[in-house]
Amino acid sequence: MEYKELNKESVISYLKNISEVMRYFGEDELQAKEIGDGNLNFVYLVNSKTNPKKALIVKQAVPYLRCVGEEFALSRERMTYEIRALSEFKKIVSEFVPELYHVSEEMSIVVMQYLDSHIILRNGLIKGQKYPNLSEHISTYLAQTLFKTSSLYLNSTQKRQLIDKFNSNTELCKLTEDFVFTSAFMEDETNDASNVENNPHAKKLFEDMEFKEKVLGLKYKFMTCNDALLHGDLHTGSIMLNDKETFVIDPEFAFVGPFGFDIGALIANLVNNYIHHSIVTTDEEFKEYLLESIKEILELFEVKFLKLWSEQKDSALMRDGFIDEATAQKFREKFVKNIIKESIGFAGCKMARRVFGVAGVAEIRGIEDKVLRQKAEVMALKISREFVVGYESVEKVDDILGMING
Amino acid sequence: MEYKELNKESVISYLKNISEVMRYFGEDELQAKEIGDGNLNFVYLVNSKTNPKKALIVKQAVPYLRCVGEEFALSRERMTYEIRALSEFKKIVSEFVPELYHVSEEMSIVVMQYLDSHIILRNGLIKGQKYPNLSEHISTYLAQTLFKTSSLYLNSTQKRQLIDKFNSNTELCKLTEDFVFTSAFMEDETNDASNVENNPHAKKLFEDMEFKEKVLGLKYKFMTCNDALLHGDLHTGSIMLNDKETFVIDPEFAFVGPFGFDIGALIANLVNNYIHHSIVTTDEEFKEYLLESIKEILELFEVKFLKLWSEQKDSALMRDGFIDEATAQKFREKFVKNIIKESIGFAGCKMARRVFGVAGVAEIRGIEDKVLRQKAEVMALKISREFVVGYESVEKVDDILGMING
Repeated sequence: MEYKELNKESVISYLKNISEVMRYFGEDELQAKEIGDGNLNFVYLVNSKTNPKKALIVKQAVPYLRCVGEEFALSRERMTYEIRALSEFKKIVSEFVPELYHVSEEMSIVVMQYLDSHIILRNGLIKGQKYPNLSEHISTYLAQTLFKTSSLYLNSTQKRQLIDKFNSNTELCKLTEDFVFTSAFMEDETNDASNVENNPHAKKLFEDMEFKEKVLGLKYKFMTCNDALLHGDLHTGSIMLNDKETFVIDPEFAFVGPFGFDIGALIANLVNNYIHHSIVTTDEEFKEYLLESIKEILELFEVKFLKLWSEQKDSALMRDGFIDEATAQKFREKFVKNIIKESIGFAGCKMARRVFGVAGVAEIRGIEDKVLRQKAEVMALKISREFVVGYESVEKVDDILGMING
Repeated sequence: MEYKELNKESVISYLKNISEVMRYFGEDELQAKEIGDGNLNFVYLVNSKTNPKKALIVKQAVPYLRCVGEEFALSRERMTYEIRALSEFKKIVSEFVPELYHVSEEMSIVVMQYLDSHIILRNGLIKGQKYPNLSEHISTYLAQTLFKTSSLYLNSTQKRQLIDKFNSNTELCKLTEDFVFTSAFMEDETNDASNVENNPHAKKLFEDMEFKEKVLGLKYKFMTCNDALLHGDLHTGSIMLNDKETFVIDPEFAFVGPFGFDIGALIANLVNNYIHHSIVTTDEEFKEYLLESIKEILELFEVKFLKLWSEQKDSALMRDGFIDEATAQKFREKFVKNIIKESIGFAGCKMARRVFGVAGVAEIRGIEDKVLRQKAEVMALKISREFVVGYESVEKVDDILGMING
């Protein structure tokens, strides 16, 4: 089917031709409303008129940046990668990916489960809401998706086929290269100009050559390491959850990249939330919960990733019988330690770029009191510097907690 | 044009339809003979009957392993990658790549310059022949091809397009993964069985867990680092030269991989030649020439690579003005030192795999006297172990010479 931009009327006629969707709705009459609050896509909530709880989400990419308008072109092929990533991840961790009812790369469309009782993790954490299963779920998600899309699990051909599917997600990878690793650390028109101007902290960051040299090294890893299929933008706004269930959404930045990048994105956003509570709510108990969560996520990730690996006898990397078990275990442990190190390096870049770069995070840029906001920024810059300059010397998870509250 | 296997008659009619080729031959009547001595392809020397010096080479891949026969299937798509690599390298270092008169991916064919006054480097070196321009030429070839196909030179989109062109060279990458990094270091039916049997040196190698753990790390780099477009099999049999000219041929293993792999392949083969002369000819002066060549190639590579890089203001990695020149220089120097280190690691794998693995090198496996041959093998195993176990601690080129003659 040739691409056509839908609206809240035509989306219903489109769905009528999709048997999987109609099996879900049965004979019900349907209604649709546009609920997208994002910058990029149109999002329709489609539900039954007689039973509004019976609902699905339809997400369609348009060939421009929605929040700016048609004059700001952005290829709708980003949805191609979102579709491919959702499909890959669904195969691996079905329980953490919304049910998919229909996808079409030609139409840049995905029809999926409506998460009506779930909240965006970032919003929950800002309110001080604890999630009892978050660490358990997200560490499983990370260990499974990273391990099972890597050369530690796939064979050589499968791995190259995976790279093929995502290698052309150039436009969004370039956004990350620019915004996460470059423009937020130098004078650039996309930065938050009103905050950069006459700000000694911005000046200090932009002139911090020790920091920026390390950023370059991490950017190079981002561009050239083909470890595993990444979500590519795994901040706390890409996770929807409640006490029981956790879902990871919006993987349009997906590509085959370095292991540490998704883990780093998540840690960065948890630390940003920790900073928010340090400065704004001073809720010590919740801060403690956040630190515990970071520790648990990293430690559980290590354990789960190592367990998956130790059960895998053959892969592109390892042939059964090549080395003895003691050596294999040593190799694996060192390898996973290295993933944790690099995660912290990436987390530092992700945090620092939110301070003066094009896109802030609610936890810091959203602080209305200017004095408090600057205190939060200074704290973010301090921690992110510790991360970026010191990530290679991280030996254990407690070292990371020391960098955060030290 | 649909694929058709040519023979020494049909190759001439094929060429008659290619204007670029006929421009070269003019009205001359043509003759062809099959001169391929390789394992994989058919190679025709086509020349003018009246002026036999007017000659071109036609190389066609067939969908099986030539030296075994039609029952050993090997996809002829390897020629696709050879064609693409020759074309890419021709754009960068025209003087070191044979003139291309015609290429066809559909026909798995390439028509190129006949190198009639050039000799395979390996054969020249075995005879003790010195080449005054080798270090200068090959260091330029390496610096130019590696730099200009990397993220240090290309922009993000160009780099991903390059990866796309070569990512599906799965079959030949898999051969390297298996034969260079795996099967030669364990019991495997492809090994040189008569030599492995009851050989304490083979037993020692296969049980050397410290060595094999490092090999695994290098194999992982080979599989997941997208630094630059590699030749992929740059041994001394892939170089044809005379006193004036140097040509690099046969890049069918080309793929986007780690910087150090081509450099390592070349160094490994020069060291194998050094071992040959240490054991067989004991020609001290030629041995000295080989060590000098290794030193020159590595040092010239460093200088040339750094020069190209320092002249490049913008690339996927670096945006002009991101860091100050002193920091940039520090970053570049450390980066290039790391390329040299990894080259030595790869060189070690390449050398060690030639001892008991499926394909030996003439310099060692070709030694007819069994006692001498074993002495050469022991020397190769000793040096390759130094390389593989110690590559990360290489600080300067002299450290490498120390590992060779230490």
